[in-house]
Amino acid sequence: MTASPSKGERIKARVIRTASNLLQRQGYNGTGLSQIIRESATPKGSLYFHFPGGKEELAVAALIAGGTEISNKLHEHITAETEPGHAIEFACAALAEELSTSNYEKGCPLATVALEAASRSEPIREVCASYFQGWQDIVYQMLLSRNVEPVQAGELATLAVASLEGAILLCRANHNTEPLERVGRQLRILLDSTLAQKK
Amino acid sequence: MTASPSKGERIKARVIRTASNLLQRQGYNGTGLSQIIRESATPKGSLYFHFPGGKEELAVAALIAGGTEISNKLHEHITAETEPGHAIEFACAALAEELSTSNYEKGCPLATVALEAASRSEPIREVCASYFQGWQDIVYQMLLSRNVEPVQAGELATLAVASLEGAILLCRANHNTEPLERVGRQLRILLDSTLAQKK
Repeated sequence: MTASPSKGERIKARVIRTASNLLQRQGYNGTGLSQIIRESATPKGSLYFHFPGGKEELAVAALIAGGTEISNKLHEHITAETEPGHAIEFACAALAEELSTSNYEKGCPLATVALEAASRSEPIREVCASYFQGWQDIVYQMLLSRNVEPVQAGELATLAVASLEGAILLCRANHNTEPLERVGRQLRILLDSTLAQKK
Repeated sequence: MTASPSKGERIKARVIRTASNLLQRQGYNGTGLSQIIRESATPKGSLYFHFPGGKEELAVAALIAGGTEISNKLHEHITAETEPGHAIEFACAALAEELSTSNYEKGCPLATVALEAASRSEPIREVCASYFQGWQDIVYQMLLSRNVEPVQAGELATLAVASLEGAILLCRANHNTEPLERVGRQLRILLDSTLAQKK
């Protein structure tokens, strides 16, 4: 039997979910605590009880929640597809779907806040850097398991995560999903040909 | 003989330069007109005389200035290097240099504002999309001139611009230039091998 979450835990989870959603759409400076309080229907006192550090502490919790979700999805794609190239192309397609259904407001839960706040807040910079590294590690391990040399696997993992992030940016500016489709296709071709040379 | 710029033109250029710098470091929501007025030492009346549309109009002018500068630098790298792969790797090295000398605050003059404001301001979205496309076109033309097929050249150009943008994001979060170095090396290898197949 799993214990049900307490009322306090439910409130905390709701605040984090609301904050993650707003930060992704509007960024750090564009999102005020008052909007988070309103949209999560949480009393101000509750918010400060759970996040005595205020907006920065809540943002860190929201980035951890969003970053973990992306890590889990990446793992899922890699488990579901036998070929690394297809797994990455599938991840691009899933991101494209999320972008178009959110009217190009959602994409990466970290990128906007990282660009705005990495120079201003060390806790925010650290959590963003750690998830960006974690996503690269997932791709790196997938390539290592297919006998790609460690240096090449590491650089290809960075290229994959960087180009997904950049493609999300281009899609949000374009208001279409073409950049992610193009990047997904080229990464698939690159990974397929890298692995073909290892056989 | 070139006519000297008038006092009004000099003020306008100074305001745009200040705005471009601040928007790149702090984003759209984090940059107020009062800070732009203060840091450019421009009277408020002058700013509204040159930019009656206020912050949005000034941001568009700043994005155009920053975007054009990147286009010019990309052209320079491509003219200076005979091999496309080396030109892109050199562009990555130049970006890495700019990031590290600005304490990882500068990078792309468009990215932060694009992520924050593309869903809120159609003029800002359009100018960002048009420069992102322009940079891809520069890489596309370079690859076309080396006999890469149009579809492949277009997709590789998108991959190159997307991965540079993503690598800048990772560098800003990491506070190191390793992501740009890794991406530069992998793009060079990819373009070199693509062109070798055309020979």
